[in-house]
Amino acid sequence: MASIDHTVHVALGERAYDILIGPKLIDEAGALLAEKFPGRRYGIVTDETVAKAQLPRLVAGLETAGLSYDTIVLPAGEATKSYAMLERVVEGLLAAKLERGDLVIALGGGVIGDLAGFAASITRRGMDFVQIPTSLLAQVDSSVGGKTGINSPHGKNLVGAFHQPKLVLADLSALDTLAPRQFAAGYAEVVKYGLIDDPDFFEWLEANRAEIFAGGPARGEAIARCCAHKARVVIEDEKETGVRALLNLGHTFGHALEKDTGYSDRLLHGEGVAIGMVLAHGFSSRLGLAPGQDSGRVAAHLKLAGLPTTLADIPGTLGSTDVLMAAIAQDKKVTRGALTFILTRGIGQAFIEKNVDPEKVRAFLEEKRSI
Amino acid sequence: MASIDHTVHVALGERAYDILIGPKLIDEAGALLAEKFPGRRYGIVTDETVAKAQLPRLVAGLETAGLSYDTIVLPAGEATKSYAMLERVVEGLLAAKLERGDLVIALGGGVIGDLAGFAASITRRGMDFVQIPTSLLAQVDSSVGGKTGINSPHGKNLVGAFHQPKLVLADLSALDTLAPRQFAAGYAEVVKYGLIDDPDFFEWLEANRAEIFAGGPARGEAIARCCAHKARVVIEDEKETGVRALLNLGHTFGHALEKDTGYSDRLLHGEGVAIGMVLAHGFSSRLGLAPGQDSGRVAAHLKLAGLPTTLADIPGTLGSTDVLMAAIAQDKKVTRGALTFILTRGIGQAFIEKNVDPEKVRAFLEEKRSI
Repeated sequence: MASIDHTVHVALGERAYDILIGPKLIDEAGALLAEKFPGRRYGIVTDETVAKAQLPRLVAGLETAGLSYDTIVLPAGEATKSYAMLERVVEGLLAAKLERGDLVIALGGGVIGDLAGFAASITRRGMDFVQIPTSLLAQVDSSVGGKTGINSPHGKNLVGAFHQPKLVLADLSALDTLAPRQFAAGYAEVVKYGLIDDPDFFEWLEANRAEIFAGGPARGEAIARCCAHKARVVIEDEKETGVRALLNLGHTFGHALEKDTGYSDRLLHGEGVAIGMVLAHGFSSRLGLAPGQDSGRVAAHLKLAGLPTTLADIPGTLGSTDVLMAAIAQDKKVTRGALTFILTRGIGQAFIEKNVDPEKVRAFLEEKRSI
Repeated sequence: MASIDHTVHVALGERAYDILIGPKLIDEAGALLAEKFPGRRYGIVTDETVAKAQLPRLVAGLETAGLSYDTIVLPAGEATKSYAMLERVVEGLLAAKLERGDLVIALGGGVIGDLAGFAASITRRGMDFVQIPTSLLAQVDSSVGGKTGINSPHGKNLVGAFHQPKLVLADLSALDTLAPRQFAAGYAEVVKYGLIDDPDFFEWLEANRAEIFAGGPARGEAIARCCAHKARVVIEDEKETGVRALLNLGHTFGHALEKDTGYSDRLLHGEGVAIGMVLAHGFSSRLGLAPGQDSGRVAAHLKLAGLPTTLADIPGTLGSTDVLMAAIAQDKKVTRGALTFILTRGIGQAFIEKNVDPEKVRAFLEEKRSI
């Protein structure tokens, strides 16, 4: 049987599902799927990098279990979250003659999970899908909660659907093949959960960061705690009409920076979030909402994890403050022209502020970019 | 106030909405929307033909009501239900800086309703939308029930979402500008509701067809009865896991013929449905399920309405029976290789048959094409 270290249940009624965390779930996926979804066919969506490292393991398990599958392999990288690749995946699933009751498997990081999940949601007006996240970021964040989508020239994730997976298999061994920079980027999202409303978790991370990076038991525990946290939020607010927005801590600044750097290797998503979280803490402190030392403590922890924490840490030249402000204004979290930000009263005390004055943001950014 | 002849409520809980039917609702839309959705901005999606005939009326009403709007005008025709046009609409809505709480207005026939509704469902992971159907087909069928989507090279409507509108405004005066061929094509869907489970309605149509085509009060009544019928079915089975499939009467044959004729002017959707319904009755009769005279009565009525009823009525040469069978097999309503068809025991007695033998369909088609 499968070796499962942690199980997190996402109790969403008829859309409920489990997140399983274990040391070799990619090898065991075939047996698990055959038992859980008898009689289905599979469309595997992955990227070239993950295909080399993980696809043979998945395919071996599917074949042992006697499951029928087709594979769609895409270029790696954020640029794959495009209309063209969406069309390619949907047409690939249709060409494979997969039916409404069959399953899409998203094998990869956040890009593949977002793209494949979105493709599943619109193929034949909705196919089921399974997430097999292979990056830390995907395991703790993007594979859970049903947000799927692609990027628009107007901004990140502006096109997509809410579509919950039927199962999430987080294989810890997949993280061993991750580039250290990718692991660190995912770690930014781990830290985020502490910063939102769990100061004890943040402290625990300060004590266990080394073990998490080294791959000790703390790694699986951290992932399970993040998934449980996200599951609670998603259950409360599946479609982000309220409290789910807290998960965007650091993301409004982060998305603007990602857009400005062209969604390129200059700045990974998690790196943008790391800088964004430091900026959110700094801005909150500037507004007199949060103690200044918390901002420093957050930055110090992220820096120890190998993450960028200031605008100056981004290689190359950033766009003007006007350009960054336009990107911020185009973010999804805008209502009637007022800027919505996730601000904080200190570590573990984030809150949603819907009436942020754009001029104060602009002045804060102006100052930060001159440092 | 607005002059409303009929109101049909679609009781879908938090996704409930009204279908209003009246003589000049396009002119009155601005006032209605301002009252019902205060403070929203609007993105109008329409096609070149409808823009000429109806857009000035809509825009005049929006301006009188002080509403802010942007307009996206697309080429007319089934080919507009494509990935490229979907991208154009989504990017147009984003370029107009419409926010999650703003509204998309689909002003047009089935093509525009399907495309704009789908674009709304994926823009910012879901915007609200209003249907203002301007064709008979859209008023009685496609604007109600939340099926949205585009076509794939693999088949019609294979890509899409279930996304309910917030309001449907069916303006009877819009039908006065329809080409007679378009009106007749929509009438095929009207007849469908009688054939499914309402023999009294079919008889009423036989008695009132001339008045419906001439634009008398029977026209509005027919539309209201169709919408009420469809609303009942959609309420019972929103995502088509069961009884909603009955609405596909004539559509499996029809879609295959549409695909074969390239979704072109050679065969309008409603025309394909007309031939498909006659074939479904004929095939049911061949299987010994339905009396042969019903098939003739259906064909006679559709013929009086100016609709094609046989394969020979389609201009040009059809693909081989193999090609047609492949199109039928690729239809969404296939489960585990067995063909699902809507068959019938006679007028008003349609039912879902999930185990249709493909060889019998092939033999039936072979015979019909040689007539």
